[in-house]
Amino acid sequence: MSEVLTKSKQAKEASRKLALVPEQTKNKALEEIAKALDSRAKEIVDANKIDLEAAEKKGMSKSLLDRLAIDGKRIKGMIEGLEVVKKLPDPVGEILNEWTRPNGLKIKKVRVPLGVIAIIYEARPNVTVDAVSLCLKTGNATVLRGSSSAINSNIAIVNVISEAAYKAGIPEGSIQLIEDTNRESVNELLKLNGLIDVAIPRGGADLINMVVKTATVPTIETGAGNCHLYVEKTADLKMAEEITLNAKTNRPSVCNAIETLLVDEAIADKFLPSALKKLKEARVEIRGDEKVRGIDKNAKQASEDDWKTEYCALILAVKVVSGIDEAIEHIEKYSTKHTEAIVTKDKKAAERFVSEIDSSSVFVNASTRFTDGFEFGFGAEIGISTQKLHARGPMGLPELTSYKYVIHGNGQVRAT
Amino acid sequence: MSEVLTKSKQAKEASRKLALVPEQTKNKALEEIAKALDSRAKEIVDANKIDLEAAEKKGMSKSLLDRLAIDGKRIKGMIEGLEVVKKLPDPVGEILNEWTRPNGLKIKKVRVPLGVIAIIYEARPNVTVDAVSLCLKTGNATVLRGSSSAINSNIAIVNVISEAAYKAGIPEGSIQLIEDTNRESVNELLKLNGLIDVAIPRGGADLINMVVKTATVPTIETGAGNCHLYVEKTADLKMAEEITLNAKTNRPSVCNAIETLLVDEAIADKFLPSALKKLKEARVEIRGDEKVRGIDKNAKQASEDDWKTEYCALILAVKVVSGIDEAIEHIEKYSTKHTEAIVTKDKKAAERFVSEIDSSSVFVNASTRFTDGFEFGFGAEIGISTQKLHARGPMGLPELTSYKYVIHGNGQVRAT
Repeated sequence: MSEVLTKSKQAKEASRKLALVPEQTKNKALEEIAKALDSRAKEIVDANKIDLEAAEKKGMSKSLLDRLAIDGKRIKGMIEGLEVVKKLPDPVGEILNEWTRPNGLKIKKVRVPLGVIAIIYEARPNVTVDAVSLCLKTGNATVLRGSSSAINSNIAIVNVISEAAYKAGIPEGSIQLIEDTNRESVNELLKLNGLIDVAIPRGGADLINMVVKTATVPTIETGAGNCHLYVEKTADLKMAEEITLNAKTNRPSVCNAIETLLVDEAIADKFLPSALKKLKEARVEIRGDEKVRGIDKNAKQASEDDWKTEYCALILAVKVVSGIDEAIEHIEKYSTKHTEAIVTKDKKAAERFVSEIDSSSVFVNASTRFTDGFEFGFGAEIGISTQKLHARGPMGLPELTSYKYVIHGNGQVRAT
Repeated sequence: MSEVLTKSKQAKEASRKLALVPEQTKNKALEEIAKALDSRAKEIVDANKIDLEAAEKKGMSKSLLDRLAIDGKRIKGMIEGLEVVKKLPDPVGEILNEWTRPNGLKIKKVRVPLGVIAIIYEARPNVTVDAVSLCLKTGNATVLRGSSSAINSNIAIVNVISEAAYKAGIPEGSIQLIEDTNRESVNELLKLNGLIDVAIPRGGADLINMVVKTATVPTIETGAGNCHLYVEKTADLKMAEEITLNAKTNRPSVCNAIETLLVDEAIADKFLPSALKKLKEARVEIRGDEKVRGIDKNAKQASEDDWKTEYCALILAVKVVSGIDEAIEHIEKYSTKHTEAIVTKDKKAAERFVSEIDSSSVFVNASTRFTDGFEFGFGAEIGISTQKLHARGPMGLPELTSYKYVIHGNGQVRAT
């Protein structure tokens, strides 16, 4: 039997027991994992060094090396994350609804774990701890499939955390790491219907696409964010400028940063000169349409590709639109349905925008950067779903659960 | 452009408008569809005759011909179904939750349609009306892909209902029927990520498997039901017998009928002789393990395949188990996670069974036949989900919706 099949079966088996583990045991395990990460930090950092050296030799870019690196501060971050998850309420067992039918059947809709969650991710070993802690708190077994570049780090981390978890009473087998990092192992994993209840990719657009296209198990599409900000003609221009700068430059590499700015032509002459100046002062490269280039000759010409691209960098596509109709049309055509925002004083325009824009999160007069599980107050985030099935937008603990119906009767049979 | 792509694009375009259509208009459309089905019944019955004749020539079985046939009574059934859906509350626009963050952001979680729902189904033309009415009420555009054997019936039905719907104010393009019934058309449809928000198969295990394995769009796995009844040692044996007979013989062809009966060995001698006699009187074929054959020599020997099979017929696999542990193990091994039931007077046994059995619906002292949207009181049913993502068990109108977050601010930007 392959490693993937063996470990997935073990995870399935463990998940049946894990689903019944009480909150105290799960919290105790999170506590013990935190302690173990602290006391065995050296093991992890040493293993990470092997990965870093190999990656450097292969010529990995500085930013990717930074994401791969684990030091004392990163481990402290992992430990703090565990503390946060420990404090969140356990959603498992919650009665979502209950009612009695005229025939006397008492129906309860009870929240239960999903079962086995496969996490497919890139060379970010902190995702290992993060994903395991969220899955564990929600009673789900985890099958982790990380990147070959982080394999030594992941093996060390999973050794530390699974030992601590099992000692605290978590059923053996609940945390599985696939050590075979060939492409075939992920293909096999994504087709294990009946063993894997859901696969969640955490990473860039290519990874997400691969998972969605390959999987026959249910998946949750996360993350890709070609986000838009529309400055409507009644906007408070100072507010619009602040939101533009924040949404683009606060953290340009993340999915809730904006990639395209749409400006109403009625206020383009008033708004753009100052806004573009500030953006350029913040080292943002501007790619504009003809009207934008009429205002700023130095702006590069935007191509069709620019409207489609999630730059994840200090680049902003800018387009002047004739009004809300064109803004909505443009967004519907190019958006990845993650997050869009409007700045406006016109309530009707705001209402139209939030009704007609088909994205997970739609903002009026605020930065797109708030699409985030923590900023929404969920206390955790496994990712941001850009699909409509199961979960949409930031996913917290309840989004890692399902439900079942429990029905009590006293001998009811169905009439013909 | 292929028919599938053209029609799916039209459906997507229409879905944006349909999502904004108020409840009155949708109800008016359901009313007009009902009227049109009544006044244009002859068109549909005539088209159905062409399908029936062709199917008969091809040697279609009697039971399939019966499912394919449309007469005045079936049309009346469709009209009654429309009346029921019309009366159900429209879930779209419901505020599922709202809260204000410390920074003043007001977050609303609002129920919205899924968008475009593809329905893949067999030669049952009544599914056409049923699926369209549920999708329409929930603001979803529909792309229908039925069987080649029902194509003339489906074309006639969709002509009648889409004309009536569009006249009542439903956006043109909201109801699409794929007339190309080659296998390639369904393959293409199931890979239209970005256009099809979810694909729902309605039919037998083969169809469901094909959809789940082929699709790259999200799917909802429905229907397959290898359901179990466990008669625990403290069971009221009369109740257990009634439930057994009802769960097997009330309607053996459907997914919530039982396929395997598990009997605690402590009461097997008392329970089985009478129960098996009654089952055989109801023309049920018994396939038993050795212990069952010790009680009833005429019972056929059950093979490994029998534990796996959803007979959808008057056949019942019967096994004597040593207790609840073996019962749960057996169910976990062979169940399709649809519905299981226990008959018991022991509260602890009941509690263990409902906690540990990982199926959409778990009954204590009642027939499995109640796993049904109408019996649960949902007023409608698009299918019974056997997966854990998005929806589980009987799916009513809310299960055909998603949500989005609408956030109002007054200039909030995110701190670094």
